[in-house]
Amino acid sequence: MTKRISEQEAAQRLLGADNILLLAHQYPDGDTLGSNFALYLALQALGKTVRVACEDVIPEKYDYMDVSASMPDFEPTFICALDVADAKLLGSGMQEAYGDRVDLCIDHHSTNTGYAAETCVDASCAACAMIILRVIRLLEVELTPAIAQCVYTGIATDTGCFKYANADALAHRMAADCMDLGIPYEMINRVNFDMKSRARIELERMALDNMEFYHNGRVALMVITNNMVATSGATENDLEGLPPIPRQIENVWVGITLRQKADGNYKISVRTGTHADAAAVCALLGGGGHNRAAGCAPSGTLDEAKAAILQAVEQAVPRITTG
Amino acid sequence: MTKRISEQEAAQRLLGADNILLLAHQYPDGDTLGSNFALYLALQALGKTVRVACEDVIPEKYDYMDVSASMPDFEPTFICALDVADAKLLGSGMQEAYGDRVDLCIDHHSTNTGYAAETCVDASCAACAMIILRVIRLLEVELTPAIAQCVYTGIATDTGCFKYANADALAHRMAADCMDLGIPYEMINRVNFDMKSRARIELERMALDNMEFYHNGRVALMVITNNMVATSGATENDLEGLPPIPRQIENVWVGITLRQKADGNYKISVRTGTHADAAAVCALLGGGGHNRAAGCAPSGTLDEAKAAILQAVEQAVPRITTG
Repeated sequence: MTKRISEQEAAQRLLGADNILLLAHQYPDGDTLGSNFALYLALQALGKTVRVACEDVIPEKYDYMDVSASMPDFEPTFICALDVADAKLLGSGMQEAYGDRVDLCIDHHSTNTGYAAETCVDASCAACAMIILRVIRLLEVELTPAIAQCVYTGIATDTGCFKYANADALAHRMAADCMDLGIPYEMINRVNFDMKSRARIELERMALDNMEFYHNGRVALMVITNNMVATSGATENDLEGLPPIPRQIENVWVGITLRQKADGNYKISVRTGTHADAAAVCALLGGGGHNRAAGCAPSGTLDEAKAAILQAVEQAVPRITTG
Repeated sequence: MTKRISEQEAAQRLLGADNILLLAHQYPDGDTLGSNFALYLALQALGKTVRVACEDVIPEKYDYMDVSASMPDFEPTFICALDVADAKLLGSGMQEAYGDRVDLCIDHHSTNTGYAAETCVDASCAACAMIILRVIRLLEVELTPAIAQCVYTGIATDTGCFKYANADALAHRMAADCMDLGIPYEMINRVNFDMKSRARIELERMALDNMEFYHNGRVALMVITNNMVATSGATENDLEGLPPIPRQIENVWVGITLRQKADGNYKISVRTGTHADAAAVCALLGGGGHNRAAGCAPSGTLDEAKAAILQAVEQAVPRITTG
């Protein structure tokens, strides 16, 4: 059973620790990386020995956060996971190595499983990086442009560049505070939201060609197979940001993306608006997430995965089958 | 020759006026409409007789701003254009009726031609609506949710939902100030940035199929013909927001969109990043705009329009032809 602690207490734990290992979640995104590298830089400024670890290779587009900086090698005496709602999400290697000995987890997912000894969660924050910004202020470390651009990256990426429902006034103001430091936000936005390779465009076209609609167009379902990825020439970098696409279509309540994994099974992403709860849908298949964005990974063939998720939608959103 | 005046002076002029006609530019976008309807509501709150006019029908998606509210009919004694850089941009009908008797223009285009008797320009503002928010504060009108959502719409749409270079800290903070009033920003963002009809998706696919590249992929050129629009079933609402697409492709410095008009000629939109000045390119063909987003409308066939804009790019951005 984890102990819930405040941001002040989280800052105290970090101030008292050294040889700190920070952990990002697998399939790392801008928020887990921005949170990790912002806190990494802040703890470094305090003279601590610290490194960031992630199960997966970090996509090149995040190079601007200096994520390739060589990390010191040491035996950690304090382990802190950022934006990781469940020990499983560390990835199998990291979970095996550290999953049962995480000292502190700082997170913004209401579904956090409490796997860490102590947990600091604020589910009202659009991004984990917003909590990290407040923790860094509590650490009394000077906010540098290098730290600020990591925090900005977390806020911008988890809000879809300030487009989603979670992009509230606080998210805008914290982003503005970061921008006051003089960060290259134009480049950050272009890299994360406004740049597609030709392979990505080809992949999107194939996916759109095969989009399926159910329940009078209220459910849109898109499939990305390994074969489509290979044919388009898309790299891992090209595969981010696909899940929002089905719900961008007019009148769609639930947008579903099935992406084939290396083992042949499918990872399912669900996106919803005000009419449906994505976390409730995915919980029926052992997954979780936020109200508007969640995921799950039932094993099975494409047809089995499709049938499972469509049934979960009907069960969690009964209104979708009527009228 | 226009007289340049301050925001304080602009507010004074409005306070002293009545029977006020506010003018939006043709092909109205979120900023000209948000600016007009915000100021309309503020002047109404002051007990003034006021209406908004626009050459073109206002796209349905802006209905949430109550743009369909019936406007009073009266002979204007004060005419004020908002976000209109040139009298030509009022559209031919409005230009003929009012172009040479605009009393005040409030605008954020550095290229403003000074066609009004008095002009209040702040080109450092990402959106005209930001200037309008300050003017409304100077009018000492209470900021209501109805006004705030118009201002937010202007800021969000002119910054590409806070994605473009002009989305600076001030733009974020002014948006946050609007959000403090309790505006439906999720709906506004979805309507403006995250909703595509199936016809729009079909049109985008056709346009992507025929994308042309020049100068080693640094120039991407997209064409939207009347025939493509008809085949896709796209309506006027579906045609907004196409110009950013070509520059979203990796390594593209200059993204060009040629859209056929009803008369068969082409309207050209140019989008650039840090490597090229869109306004300089379009100025060579009698157009104008901002550094990163500009337009022009040379007459001629598709081949003539293409040749003209490609030559203008080579002339304005000589570096693009080398290395």
